Amino acid sequence: MATSYVKLLGTRSSPYVNRAQIALNIKSVNYEFLEEKMGSKSELLLESNPIHKKIPVLIHDDKPICESLIIVQYIDQVWTSAPSILPSDPYDRAIACFWAAYIDDKLIPLLKEIRTAEGEESKAAAIERVVEGMVVLEEAFVKCSKGKAFFGGDSIGYVDIAFGCLLGWLKVTQKMGDMQLFTEARTPNLVIWAERFCSHDAVKDVIPKTEELLEISKIKILQAREKSP
Amino acid sequence: MATSYVKLLGTRSSPYVNRAQIALNIKSVNYEFLEEKMGSKSELLLESNPIHKKIPVLIHDDKPICESLIIVQYIDQVWTSAPSILPSDPYDRAIACFWAAYIDDKLIPLLKEIRTAEGEESKAAAIERVVEGMVVLEEAFVKCSKGKAFFGGDSIGYVDIAFGCLLGWLKVTQKMGDMQLFTEARTPNLVIWAERFCSHDAVKDVIPKTEELLEISKIKILQAREKSP
Repeated sequence: MATSYVKLLGTRSSPYVNRAQIALNIKSVNYEFLEEKMGSKSELLLESNPIHKKIPVLIHDDKPICESLIIVQYIDQVWTSAPSILPSDPYDRAIACFWAAYIDDKLIPLLKEIRTAEGEESKAAAIERVVEGMVVLEEAFVKCSKGKAFFGGDSIGYVDIAFGCLLGWLKVTQKMGDMQLFTEARTPNLVIWAERFCSHDAVKDVIPKTEELLEISKIKILQAREKSP
Repeated sequence: MATSYVKLLGTRSSPYVNRAQIALNIKSVNYEFLEEKMGSKSELLLESNPIHKKIPVLIHDDKPICESLIIVQYIDQVWTSAPSILPSDPYDRAIACFWAAYIDDKLIPLLKEIRTAEGEESKAAAIERVVEGMVVLEEAFVKCSKGKAFFGGDSIGYVDIAFGCLLGWLKVTQKMGDMQLFTEARTPNLVIWAERFCSHDAVKDVIPKTEELLEISKIKILQAREKSP
């Protein structure tokens, strides 16, 4: 069903945009990628998401859908051809939504704290909080996957997409700060899962390489410095 | 379906708990309300929501579901007897989820800024930001309700529950700060909607009276003062 016209507004380096891309790939949906320029917002973006003015925006049959996790849910509900992204069982679905919210509301803010921490001691404390946040997800993985490959079981699901899209930037944060957020000692299952996720057919051409993200990161730092007084 | 045992952990003054209560009322689900004491957390709460340690928690057949909006979605999916809380159409559902997220991620933080604002000028600016946030919701109401009584159309829906549960505390904020956040001049439809929502059968015994919330608010302020160094 729903073979109509699909556009995605975003940048290829945004983990939130990557979520929508992977969901569309899983459903084998053809779409036009409308690249937003870094540092500016297109007229179409401002029109399509006047409230937050943020990418990604999915445009399906001229109707805009905003917010990455809402887009993933929408894609799952519209293109019902297998495989499903969200579980159909209400309890499993609630658990998947819980962990996706944990990633956005808890883990991402913790990651941002690493960047803003000042001084060695407070940086080390911020890193430890992220690692502890990862350990919580490691435990969630063990429970959700039930010995299978992904949070979603045999195939990539909602939590895989929500978390997996951060992997590129996690690697950049590790490299730039010379730190380990993911370790075989503390999150052994997540280390294996991350490799498996990144080499999946629906994912491998979506998440940019670490070197590419490192370059973007340097440009962003320079832009921020130019803007600051 | 699903007439099994349902418990709800929370306090009656929490707008997040009220969301779950209203959803259960809409679905005519009998449940046991397990009141949490203000300022402490029960063993059952800590066990049921070890990650956030927060109310509400819905316990259905011994399985805990956390986070108020996830609970509302769960209730809607489990008790499928009419009326529905979320739209079945994927686009309408995405729009409802968008506005519910707007309320939690944008409007509630703006409301908190009123309390933390220092000085008359910054307080006035914080109030204006909330009113502007309300005007955005007023426009959303006009679009979503399509001339009907609620965001959800003829019956109370997801956005009604997400937003409506804040009304008690909004009134308290208005009263304590001697300010108007809702006005006939700027949000005329929301003023009428709020009255309609609060007098609905599924709502009227759930949202506490302003006087009651004022008392709780005073106790909380005293407790916070005692805790502060």
